[in-house]
Amino acid sequence: MEENELLVYLEEFISIERRERFISILENRTKFITVALEDVFQLHNASAVIRSCDIFGVQEAHIIENRNRNELDKNISMGAQQWVDVHRYKDTTSCIKTLRKKGYKIIATTPHDDSVILPDFPIEEKVALFFGTERDGLSAEVLKEADGFLKIPMKGFTESLNISVAAAIILQHVSEKLTKTNLLWQLTETEKLEKRLEWTKKSIKSIDMILERYLNE
Amino acid sequence: MEENELLVYLEEFISIERRERFISILENRTKFITVALEDVFQLHNASAVIRSCDIFGVQEAHIIENRNRNELDKNISMGAQQWVDVHRYKDTTSCIKTLRKKGYKIIATTPHDDSVILPDFPIEEKVALFFGTERDGLSAEVLKEADGFLKIPMKGFTESLNISVAAAIILQHVSEKLTKTNLLWQLTETEKLEKRLEWTKKSIKSIDMILERYLNE
Repeated sequence: MEENELLVYLEEFISIERRERFISILENRTKFITVALEDVFQLHNASAVIRSCDIFGVQEAHIIENRNRNELDKNISMGAQQWVDVHRYKDTTSCIKTLRKKGYKIIATTPHDDSVILPDFPIEEKVALFFGTERDGLSAEVLKEADGFLKIPMKGFTESLNISVAAAIILQHVSEKLTKTNLLWQLTETEKLEKRLEWTKKSIKSIDMILERYLNE
Repeated sequence: MEENELLVYLEEFISIERRERFISILENRTKFITVALEDVFQLHNASAVIRSCDIFGVQEAHIIENRNRNELDKNISMGAQQWVDVHRYKDTTSCIKTLRKKGYKIIATTPHDDSVILPDFPIEEKVALFFGTERDGLSAEVLKEADGFLKIPMKGFTESLNISVAAAIILQHVSEKLTKTNLLWQLTETEKLEKRLEWTKKSIKSIDMILERYLNE
């Protein structure tokens, strides 16, 4: 309840339009599907996937950096990324473990003997969609651990899609399908409230000063 | 029939696998849907859209260059572009006129008061899907002439998709839907034969010498 009061207080510092926007966007957010990027170090690709998460309502993304590269760290916090929760992992093992603990099935998005094609992909359980680089694909570990394989049917000479394009196609399709099911795909009321508070805080420039004033009142 | 004989002759110079590949790809090619890019001068964006055309079986693409830029001309003939027929126009008017003459409805892919969202977009007639730049969108002329408007539903803070991503999502969805209809969406047998001949010629390195020998026989 304290959080609720704080939210009411802070929302006076943002416009009504902004508040309404947060509420309406949160109605379309989901944690039922999530995305994991394995060693996608190119900034524009990772950013584009995070952007697609925002656009198609995926609230959480997971970034695995098996190799020790730091370029992404400095630059990724831009644009859409502030509205999507990005979790980082030093290796694939810990990412898979964390996601399984949260109840996700591990889905490797890659052509494979057991691949289901996108139009036939069933949405019945929480899924974490794993994407690798266009050049190297997903690691042997992801392929071994995967509960399922998903691919986009390709009918031409070109045999691979850029990762940002593949992720966008899959997220658009899966999120659209998800919202038409009876599954409880939306955030819980508590989760919505938490995000609303977080986003409101982010939108207030002098938030530290205002929070201090609120706590002293 | 002459073409058919020539094809049989030339196919001896390519591998069986390649021949089978041409045949199977051509079974999935369509001219029922086509793509028009208006003033998309960035090479990587135009190339990515052509690549998606190949991947999702769209045989023809139309490129409009209202402004006089030549960068694209030199560089575009790479990769997937050799398997997709690219037509070029100096202005939007001539492109729309040509497409209408071929029986296409002009569909502006852009948010608009009259937009149909992608999951509800009906495929009943031949459609030419127009894409503009992310920055400027489509021209007033396309918006005025359009028979319909199509948009991808977006549910987050981000309000636009990169053109290559938007085109891929739309082509994947529309081509998938098309193949499930009873419409005559495939190439005609004559068209397939022509393409097969063209692609076979392209695949033979010393084609000029071989053609000369054939004609002299």
